[in-house]
Amino acid sequence: MTQVVLAIDLGGTSADFAFINLEGKIIFKENIKSKDYDTANSFVQLVKKLSNEAIKRKKLDIKIRAIGIGAPNGNYYRGTIEFAPNLRWNGIIPIADYFNMAFGIPCFLTNDANAAAIGEGMYGNAQNVKDFIMMTLGTGVGSGIVINDKVIYGNDGFAGELGHVIVKNKGRKCGCGREGCLETYASVTGLKRTVIKLLMDNKFESGLKGVSFNELTGKMVNDAALKGDKLAIEAFRYTGEILGKALANFIAFSSPNLIILFGGLAQAGDLILNPTKKAMEENLLKIYRGKVPIILSGLKGNDAAILGAAALAWKEMGVRN
Amino acid sequence: MTQVVLAIDLGGTSADFAFINLEGKIIFKENIKSKDYDTANSFVQLVKKLSNEAIKRKKLDIKIRAIGIGAPNGNYYRGTIEFAPNLRWNGIIPIADYFNMAFGIPCFLTNDANAAAIGEGMYGNAQNVKDFIMMTLGTGVGSGIVINDKVIYGNDGFAGELGHVIVKNKGRKCGCGREGCLETYASVTGLKRTVIKLLMDNKFESGLKGVSFNELTGKMVNDAALKGDKLAIEAFRYTGEILGKALANFIAFSSPNLIILFGGLAQAGDLILNPTKKAMEENLLKIYRGKVPIILSGLKGNDAAILGAAALAWKEMGVRN
Repeated sequence: MTQVVLAIDLGGTSADFAFINLEGKIIFKENIKSKDYDTANSFVQLVKKLSNEAIKRKKLDIKIRAIGIGAPNGNYYRGTIEFAPNLRWNGIIPIADYFNMAFGIPCFLTNDANAAAIGEGMYGNAQNVKDFIMMTLGTGVGSGIVINDKVIYGNDGFAGELGHVIVKNKGRKCGCGREGCLETYASVTGLKRTVIKLLMDNKFESGLKGVSFNELTGKMVNDAALKGDKLAIEAFRYTGEILGKALANFIAFSSPNLIILFGGLAQAGDLILNPTKKAMEENLLKIYRGKVPIILSGLKGNDAAILGAAALAWKEMGVRN
Repeated sequence: MTQVVLAIDLGGTSADFAFINLEGKIIFKENIKSKDYDTANSFVQLVKKLSNEAIKRKKLDIKIRAIGIGAPNGNYYRGTIEFAPNLRWNGIIPIADYFNMAFGIPCFLTNDANAAAIGEGMYGNAQNVKDFIMMTLGTGVGSGIVINDKVIYGNDGFAGELGHVIVKNKGRKCGCGREGCLETYASVTGLKRTVIKLLMDNKFESGLKGVSFNELTGKMVNDAALKGDKLAIEAFRYTGEILGKALANFIAFSSPNLIILFGGLAQAGDLILNPTKKAMEENLLKIYRGKVPIILSGLKGNDAAILGAAALAWKEMGVRN
């Protein structure tokens, strides 16, 4: 009988659940479309039904020890999802309690960026690293800050909102209602906004001139840059410069020895890594210089979130540090 | 027999040592001028000699359990003072080892800002507060970040250098060699620089026009502001605005439930508190708004550092959280 945890990666359009063993092997994984769960409770019941069916159908010889959930706006302390703009469930949802009641085993929850950091620490490129910061650069920017082997949650469970550090006075309008947040520059959306800004400045010729903002994707900018498109390359440089400066400030806070980039923007590899590293080093206080590598996540994009949810559960069970 | 720790507050021009009990009562305290200790070892021997003499002379019925030191550029992990520009001792000084050998009891060391935070947590206004940030606004700006009841040190012992977070692109030249550090604005020196800037702008009449930069003190700006000097008031407002914005970003990192201001600039009270609070609230991400009070230190300025050193020792001995 294999000991596993039930890991859940909850998103706005769909959710994954999986059985994952201590070594991070995914024994079984299934996707659920969000239209199939209008309420949190119906979601919990559906996961229960589908996992029982899978165990029977696949003749899985497993024992589920605990449940781990990574969710947008997840609050670790309370096990709740709170006012998540991308979910259909409104208000404060005590989803960890629902799962606990339905399955009769411990359930742990954190937000998706923290889950990714925990997963990276257990199964990715931050194994045996006690102090690191993981930046999730996707549609928005999330972060998980690990200090002395623990994700920090702060007073109310909302520590580590580094996407909403203001990096520019009177900067770009952010979805949070303020201006100049890191997220408005160092996300895929931020990269697109930078492309538009550069097209407006009109200092570079570019094949991206014929593409509308809505059509534009991170991949297009990436592909253009790889083909030598000056404007696309400049867009990554500009993004990396802002990200690198922000990282230099973050290092003065927690003095990590590693920074990990993850998410859509990170997939651009050296295009974003090189200017980020350069700006970070140039802006670091002397005592930190040359000591903090920036690397890409070691988790496969598709499995990172679910592995993070599993790692959370194993960690909380005290099985692993 | 009273259980005490030997607490040492080490500075560039002088040092204090004191016997302090668990409740923070200073049983005995003495000052040593730095000219009396050219080398670290002679300092250690002098402290030993003077404390033995004091015990005899005052007939102190004490047992010294441990030694705690707060020092500029102190490294908690290594018990060393490293390249402290304001001390006469060069290079890396393993001073905790020296004390340990001389006294035969455990010796713990941290930098002065961290010591102040630990003291605030044990004896000041942060008692029973698990997550807070203490900003030391003196000649420079230091900080101690407490997360889940522990000062964070990071990978190499240098976490919490919030005075050197860059808050302004191409801002004021900092002693660290870079530009725009918080310290160049939110310290007493920064306040003086702001007064000079405002005199240059010449938008306000001011009684400070006749004072040179070298003559100018924080207290003069303070007194002028209290008498209604518009320029002095504006200098505090400008300083508080920059400090408040920086604090809003720090909160997104560790989500503390308290911020404590300490040091010369903090002595201005409401003059600095009010504009700082205003700017911080205006720049906070919604989830943190209205939740993080900013207050002044509860430790008397003269005893804060030495109480911090004592608190460090008691804490490390496991006697108190």
